[in-house]
Amino acid sequence: MTLEEVFSPRSVAVVGVSGGAELSFSGMIVLSLIMAGFPAIYPVNPKYKEILELPCYPDLLSIPGPVDHVIVSITAEGCLDLLDECAAKGVRSVHFFTAGFGESGYKDRADLEVAMLEKARSGNFRIIGPNCVGIYVPKSRVTNHPNAPLEPGPIAFISQSGGHAQNLPVFGASRGLRYSKIVSYGNALDVDECELLDYLTEDPETEIISAYIEGVKDGRRLIDSMARAARRKPVIVYKGGRTEAGKRAAFGHTASMTSSVATFEAACRQVNAIPVDNTEEMIDVLAALRFMRNIPVGPNVAVVGGGGGPSVLASDDMEIEGLRVPPLSSEVQEELKRRLPIAGSIFTNPIDTNNMIDPKAISFTLRTVGRSPDIDMIVYHLGFHPIGSWGLGRFSSPAFLEPVIEAILSAQEEIGKPVLLVLRPPQDLESMKEYLAAQEALVDAGLPVFLSLRDMARAIHRIIVWNERAKARGQDL
Amino acid sequence: MTLEEVFSPRSVAVVGVSGGAELSFSGMIVLSLIMAGFPAIYPVNPKYKEILELPCYPDLLSIPGPVDHVIVSITAEGCLDLLDECAAKGVRSVHFFTAGFGESGYKDRADLEVAMLEKARSGNFRIIGPNCVGIYVPKSRVTNHPNAPLEPGPIAFISQSGGHAQNLPVFGASRGLRYSKIVSYGNALDVDECELLDYLTEDPETEIISAYIEGVKDGRRLIDSMARAARRKPVIVYKGGRTEAGKRAAFGHTASMTSSVATFEAACRQVNAIPVDNTEEMIDVLAALRFMRNIPVGPNVAVVGGGGGPSVLASDDMEIEGLRVPPLSSEVQEELKRRLPIAGSIFTNPIDTNNMIDPKAISFTLRTVGRSPDIDMIVYHLGFHPIGSWGLGRFSSPAFLEPVIEAILSAQEEIGKPVLLVLRPPQDLESMKEYLAAQEALVDAGLPVFLSLRDMARAIHRIIVWNERAKARGQDL
Repeated sequence: MTLEEVFSPRSVAVVGVSGGAELSFSGMIVLSLIMAGFPAIYPVNPKYKEILELPCYPDLLSIPGPVDHVIVSITAEGCLDLLDECAAKGVRSVHFFTAGFGESGYKDRADLEVAMLEKARSGNFRIIGPNCVGIYVPKSRVTNHPNAPLEPGPIAFISQSGGHAQNLPVFGASRGLRYSKIVSYGNALDVDECELLDYLTEDPETEIISAYIEGVKDGRRLIDSMARAARRKPVIVYKGGRTEAGKRAAFGHTASMTSSVATFEAACRQVNAIPVDNTEEMIDVLAALRFMRNIPVGPNVAVVGGGGGPSVLASDDMEIEGLRVPPLSSEVQEELKRRLPIAGSIFTNPIDTNNMIDPKAISFTLRTVGRSPDIDMIVYHLGFHPIGSWGLGRFSSPAFLEPVIEAILSAQEEIGKPVLLVLRPPQDLESMKEYLAAQEALVDAGLPVFLSLRDMARAIHRIIVWNERAKARGQDL
Repeated sequence: MTLEEVFSPRSVAVVGVSGGAELSFSGMIVLSLIMAGFPAIYPVNPKYKEILELPCYPDLLSIPGPVDHVIVSITAEGCLDLLDECAAKGVRSVHFFTAGFGESGYKDRADLEVAMLEKARSGNFRIIGPNCVGIYVPKSRVTNHPNAPLEPGPIAFISQSGGHAQNLPVFGASRGLRYSKIVSYGNALDVDECELLDYLTEDPETEIISAYIEGVKDGRRLIDSMARAARRKPVIVYKGGRTEAGKRAAFGHTASMTSSVATFEAACRQVNAIPVDNTEEMIDVLAALRFMRNIPVGPNVAVVGGGGGPSVLASDDMEIEGLRVPPLSSEVQEELKRRLPIAGSIFTNPIDTNNMIDPKAISFTLRTVGRSPDIDMIVYHLGFHPIGSWGLGRFSSPAFLEPVIEAILSAQEEIGKPVLLVLRPPQDLESMKEYLAAQEALVDAGLPVFLSLRDMARAIHRIIVWNERAKARGQDL
């Protein structure tokens, strides 16, 4: 059974799903599938006649039509019998949400995994997991979280952790990230990270590959797969278990023997993958790769925005994370001073002007600064405290945002360099409403938006390092 | 004129305020004062008869009653004449919102500052700034931002940056932080960081002192003031201008010659102040000092929460930031296994159980883990993705939250160790509503809440280092 078939099921059974007032995780998956408009969903549980207004079947074989994909949340004990039913029913793939296998530390549970794999081989179906949240393929309307977006996109993510597999699409949604396939592969009993990487390398729907890995059975094989993938597409990886405590946790989580940080970092350098530290950093790198006008040709950044203190810290943040904030030439500074108010402003780079809520001033500033040959990209940080928190509603109104966005986009094209936006999220509901509306408009316009200056700088620095290495190797990514 | 008098004005004039549809910054200050119920507010501007429904006066001397505090936003050119009026009116203090003085780089503007200081000395009033947002003293109902909380509290903050001075109370509000005095002192022409530190050291309303400093004229004097303050109260400092670009920005911002990072860090060690890197870290350290049950006696943390992948990264985050996640003894692990479900759980530390939404399980887990002599504190991270984003509304309902909070508080008292809560903010409005309601209930119960595991670990590690140094010096803070 090919992974292509696994990722395009037209019927799904959810075995062991429970009903009642408090939905289980598998109930949430059924709900998510209903909300996504998936065509054929069959809850299976002898205790119920109906779940979420769908007829509920006592067992797999009672389902009238064919079943392509099975999601399992019964306890480990009943798994072998269920797999016999799966073989009889002719399913393509079985996703075990169920945990409590090899990772539990009990030998009989590890033996059970071996028997399960044998059943999959003889029954000609694939196993995802166990101990994972399975697959999310928007194109096929297969989803495992009610808040994950339903439009497909060019990013793939494979994750040994179900939590991270669900977090990435939910937390990345407001940044504009959309996915071809996300696979939570848990204990990697059958489908593992190497097979997934090989598939995604060839997958025409995937332009960027991202991965969360705790540990691997065959490091050499993984490096080969990563290397093949990284020659064709950007590959971003983060690794769990970088400390003693993290390694212990990873072993308890997916029975993974994790390699050391040094080994991981050396592998990333060797294959030219982009290493990140967590989901937030992954989202920052993905947003930059996906939406940045072009990869900056060097590390020189012009920092534009409002507020003296924030400009000072912004400059510190850029240089601490490896970018450079070169002083602007005196000609450029004089040009800025001729058109912008002097009081309360800084023109050296960072550029702090208190006029950055006027589209004309935004356009003039971005063009003037961006034309400077010393500058490879512009960071435009919108201090959100005089926006959302003043409560003027200005920054969420199209009348304000549309000319601002137009000014940014046309400046970007004129100077031929990327403009990166940083909006710090507020912490009160009123401001958050305005913030999210502004963020949505900027993201819909195809602009890369970041939540913090330092995080943005770290992501861009990583991409510049990766891009230089790719160029040195003659890769064209 | 004492600072005590400066901080307790009963009448305020706002000179140069403008009206109209788009309020200026000084207009926002008038609005904030009205919202705060400040008793006597006098807008001054010859162009208007009325601003925000308050009578507007053509000049200071036309105001009928006394004026204690003057907020100025006219251009630098008119400042000397205005100060003559201030002297004639017998004011206590003048806050110059106005920028464009010494920090502009023009010599005549620096000379103007000298003349202004002479007028203040001869007129017996104090100058705050110029180039700042002035004072925020909730007890006196003096505020400069409509979203800053109006209840007083035990934290003081002095800031060379107006942006940071406004950000701290607004961003810290949802974390429960409340203030005695916040002073944005800008160019520090008259009232400077040393005088403010000396005042706050003696101020009975201030228990914790925090500061944002770009540069100082007299480093020796600052270290003396910091040392005196740090012997009596926790002092937390962050510094702008730690890189070449940041230094250039600081010079453009407040004409500050910043010292090197090494000098700053050495000074913090010498006086035993707590260094932080930005407003977010400041808020984390303040929330910990303010709400932690006790300062942990050592770095050993039990990490409790839901999700395998998040538990792995949580453990990595703790150890990367200098805390330790020791394995629990086999007795404690066995005790946990007897009462909690095994499938999908980790018991070694981190402790990942999928039952942490039941108050009984929370109480049992926190008590069992916290009784372990290897543990100095517990981090309880609530994975917010199965909360807000599932949309069940559960985590904002008092019926759910009250027993959970009671379980945490009583466990904390029984084990005599702090429980630190980490809630990662969501990025969609529905989840944010639920998140903020949950956060508010936890904060109202007096619990320290953090937004990220790594940031929490960094803050706690800094506090532990500071506390050990204080103990070694025989300080009792």
